[in-house]
Amino acid sequence: MSSSKKQSGSLQEKPGISQPEITNVAAINQIKKNRRQQPSSAELITGILAGNRTALSRAITLAESTNPEHAEKANEVITGCLPHANKSIRIGITGVPGVGKSTFIEAFGTFLTQLGKKVAVLAVDPSSSLSHGSILGDKTRMEELVKDENAFIRPSASGDTLGGVARKTREAIILCEAAGFDTIIIETVGVGQSETAVHSMVDFFLLLKISGAGDELQGIKRGIMEMADAIVINKADGDNIKKANQAKLEFNRALHLFPQKKSNWQPKVTTCSAITGEGISAIWETISSYVDTMTASGYFQEKRKEQNHFWMMETINEQLKLNFFTQPEIISQLEQNKKAVQNDEISPFAAAQLLLNIYAKIQK
Amino acid sequence: MSSSKKQSGSLQEKPGISQPEITNVAAINQIKKNRRQQPSSAELITGILAGNRTALSRAITLAESTNPEHAEKANEVITGCLPHANKSIRIGITGVPGVGKSTFIEAFGTFLTQLGKKVAVLAVDPSSSLSHGSILGDKTRMEELVKDENAFIRPSASGDTLGGVARKTREAIILCEAAGFDTIIIETVGVGQSETAVHSMVDFFLLLKISGAGDELQGIKRGIMEMADAIVINKADGDNIKKANQAKLEFNRALHLFPQKKSNWQPKVTTCSAITGEGISAIWETISSYVDTMTASGYFQEKRKEQNHFWMMETINEQLKLNFFTQPEIISQLEQNKKAVQNDEISPFAAAQLLLNIYAKIQK
Repeated sequence: MSSSKKQSGSLQEKPGISQPEITNVAAINQIKKNRRQQPSSAELITGILAGNRTALSRAITLAESTNPEHAEKANEVITGCLPHANKSIRIGITGVPGVGKSTFIEAFGTFLTQLGKKVAVLAVDPSSSLSHGSILGDKTRMEELVKDENAFIRPSASGDTLGGVARKTREAIILCEAAGFDTIIIETVGVGQSETAVHSMVDFFLLLKISGAGDELQGIKRGIMEMADAIVINKADGDNIKKANQAKLEFNRALHLFPQKKSNWQPKVTTCSAITGEGISAIWETISSYVDTMTASGYFQEKRKEQNHFWMMETINEQLKLNFFTQPEIISQLEQNKKAVQNDEISPFAAAQLLLNIYAKIQK
Repeated sequence: MSSSKKQSGSLQEKPGISQPEITNVAAINQIKKNRRQQPSSAELITGILAGNRTALSRAITLAESTNPEHAEKANEVITGCLPHANKSIRIGITGVPGVGKSTFIEAFGTFLTQLGKKVAVLAVDPSSSLSHGSILGDKTRMEELVKDENAFIRPSASGDTLGGVARKTREAIILCEAAGFDTIIIETVGVGQSETAVHSMVDFFLLLKISGAGDELQGIKRGIMEMADAIVINKADGDNIKKANQAKLEFNRALHLFPQKKSNWQPKVTTCSAITGEGISAIWETISSYVDTMTASGYFQEKRKEQNHFWMMETINEQLKLNFFTQPEIISQLEQNKKAVQNDEISPFAAAQLLLNIYAKIQK
């Protein structure tokens, strides 16, 4: 019956294109040989520490892999790189689509490499597995930077969960730093929880905005403004300059209403044009001044320690949940308990206890 | 040696006051008899549904108990009460110390009982186990309400964690509703995460403020303003009226900057005086209008379902963490891993995996 259904179904698909069989023995051997030639973790570490970009790319790919063997090797490489990491400034950049993030990073990154900096650009975009990279998927949007030998651009890791993507990005930061990159830019798109994840892996968090018509603050997520160490109003060129300055005033007033940050840093609002380059150097001065002040006060190092601790705890918590919610017995019981709870047939706490008891039995 | 140390120690304590021994057989038997006379869960349910306040108090005490036997019995009572619960309006009230929460609840609660409402006042104060109840510990602050036979006041459950206190309060809500209370007020103090917990168990969230000198918004936690369905500026009496109206304007302007709520409700700002009673009825009109609108749109029921679901998931997640972090092997390994992670000797992810592996071995 299911086969007849298939034939008559209006959603029926054509048979897929069949895969060509590899019958060429030489070709098979070549493929196997190439596989054997994958560098060892020691070779990758040596390569990365020497600043070899191929070794760096390969190590990031390993860290992104879901293959358990690759994960183990990636862990070896990361552990080997760790003592040489952490000597960089990590800058998070967020902004909704349309504010010109790519153009800004192109201008800002190029400005930094001209100062002699080595710049790595990473991205956190949990939606990238669906959209195949809605940000940084297209490197052509950073034409200059992509050719710059002091820059390294890597699209967002893919993954089903923000936690997974964030973890891979954290590991990529370590690898880039060990390869000698001293300025790490992490781009994220202004949706969902990805800003919070990026905020918890950077030293400095920059919110990119453009001036619009009327009320600049309307609809902006408060949490994001609260996280920002600087707000940069982009596209402040031509007819926009006046509006951008007005937006700057409004943001300054709004920021004033926020409680003092733990770092005691008063967030700065500036305008810039990624096209004319106006205001780009001032942003770097702000970041440098932040780093100097926070290093002197000890907050810089303290924050990194806290972030490391946060990620350890976060990983444990995520994994505990994953272990629980992927148990077939839990999956099969969860839905009916959810319904019973929603319909007030059982209290949320009793339902939770019931599921936890099932889980405890499974584990024994 | 330890005994000689004890004798010579400067922190040595005097022997405690010795407990009188109970030698009176009749007294012992009376105590045992009283214990035996603890009502059964069926009796408690019957009592609660009949509106018996002693039964209600006893059931809440059972639910607050850490004794596993009590917990089981409490679960039976709660399950029995559930079909009769949920027919109330749950109102959360928060505000920093000094805004006059107790006086406000006294005035507001008395207003409601005069309308014929049955009002239960509960509190969420995770610090109460230390301070022995910094809020609602002293019922004398609600002199009228405490004597009102249509009101029921219960101090905050004590507990080490907010999750624990919140759970007990959620259960107390169910019990109060089953006992016929149609208006549940949950008071919390404006510190820590307790507002978020209260927000996730009420239908309507009210932020109590007073007008001060100058910038009203300075330093206010953004998250709390974002949660508020109404902001009430209390102490709008005498010389304060003008300042309170000014504050009302400022809050209205600030609220305007927030994104639209999921409920489409535009939060209201009003002034009131708990002393003169001015503005109290308007607050009730606002809440009634909220309930009517949200019931008509289906949002009221939807939100309660979501809250039930949230508490089930939250309980599971909390318990999973608790099970993990209370394992002696984890406790003994956590500290050194924490240090290694903070000092960049191991990556946060590798450390997490190490601890998770230890946990997996324990469970087998």
